[in-house]
Amino acid sequence: MIENRRQVRTDGTGNADILETAAQCFMEQGFSATSIDDVARRLGATKGRIYHYYSSKTDLFFDVHREGLERLFQAVEPVMGIEGSGVVRLRAMLTAHAMAMMTNAAFEAVVVQGVHMHRMAATTPDQRRTLDDLIAIRRRFEGLFKQVLQEGVDDGSIRNIDISISAKAMLGAINWLSVWYRPASDETEMDRQMLAERIVTTQIDGVRS
Amino acid sequence: MIENRRQVRTDGTGNADILETAAQCFMEQGFSATSIDDVARRLGATKGRIYHYYSSKTDLFFDVHREGLERLFQAVEPVMGIEGSGVVRLRAMLTAHAMAMMTNAAFEAVVVQGVHMHRMAATTPDQRRTLDDLIAIRRRFEGLFKQVLQEGVDDGSIRNIDISISAKAMLGAINWLSVWYRPASDETEMDRQMLAERIVTTQIDGVRS
Repeated sequence: MIENRRQVRTDGTGNADILETAAQCFMEQGFSATSIDDVARRLGATKGRIYHYYSSKTDLFFDVHREGLERLFQAVEPVMGIEGSGVVRLRAMLTAHAMAMMTNAAFEAVVVQGVHMHRMAATTPDQRRTLDDLIAIRRRFEGLFKQVLQEGVDDGSIRNIDISISAKAMLGAINWLSVWYRPASDETEMDRQMLAERIVTTQIDGVRS
Repeated sequence: MIENRRQVRTDGTGNADILETAAQCFMEQGFSATSIDDVARRLGATKGRIYHYYSSKTDLFFDVHREGLERLFQAVEPVMGIEGSGVVRLRAMLTAHAMAMMTNAAFEAVVVQGVHMHRMAATTPDQRRTLDDLIAIRRRFEGLFKQVLQEGVDDGSIRNIDISISAKAMLGAINWLSVWYRPASDETEMDRQMLAERIVTTQIDGVRS
């Protein structure tokens, strides 16, 4: 769970629907081609309503990014504590991560786009603090996988590999979904589950003892 | 090799140094925060010199993207034809790809950023044709890996896996380098080779028979 995060209210009176709509716009058009106007128009709201919550497009982008990371934590943390060896828990975590990447495709596209935003030179001190915060959350997420990889090496279920490089490569294999995956119109939860398992199986077979 | 591509002259009188400098700017600042002015200033050239070759920042970005893809082809195609089973050739191709991602870090960051640019709605008809062209080149690159994966399945050196999903996951694991890899100041070719082999070994172990 991400600590000290802004409360997202889902009762329709808060900013949850702004985030959903903004995520869609950013996914489809990218950051630079999206305006606050686009988000307001698609939401059927006034620009004023959005500016009530966000003082700039960058702040809105950051909050979508934060929500995308939060959803990844919510998917992965619960399965981290299941019974089983390191490799069993790692498989469950990677599968949950892949499912979350597909289920929240718009939010997770922003998380991946956001990686490049980190390189933008021109940001205010406030935005730089937010970026540092997001980078720290991202690092904590990677840390969950490193921890379980290490536990797997310790309990003998995972080979003696380079933990840090393996975690990055595995997460890359799954995060790449945000580049190529587009849900088919008749796609079911089962289809997504099968896709997740296919990706995860080769990643797990690459590290298991 | 990419057919019909613009000739890049490397004799200092052409646009090769513009591309190098632009790649650096795009990598460090991202597309939206980079201006033609930034590129000219860093290159110690006039804006006019850049506009002689490129009519807009988007065109310049596309040509950096194209050069980045060309360098990946140049790295991977020669080793595709070495002696050996499918899995042996796949390993050599993935290693060459990982090395190219690191050696040409600035160009390849643009290739990865460019994936998101594909989603930008607002482009001219000319730019849309260029985008379609880049997407086709990218697909052809993925096709090289699918071909050798299939040959490995046929010769028994690779398990009977889903070729398309496996190719995307493997390329994702390697392309993710562009998100986290930064060359250390004292880094050698040997360091890069070791990093490439660590990433590739777990990918290969995940699919080999």
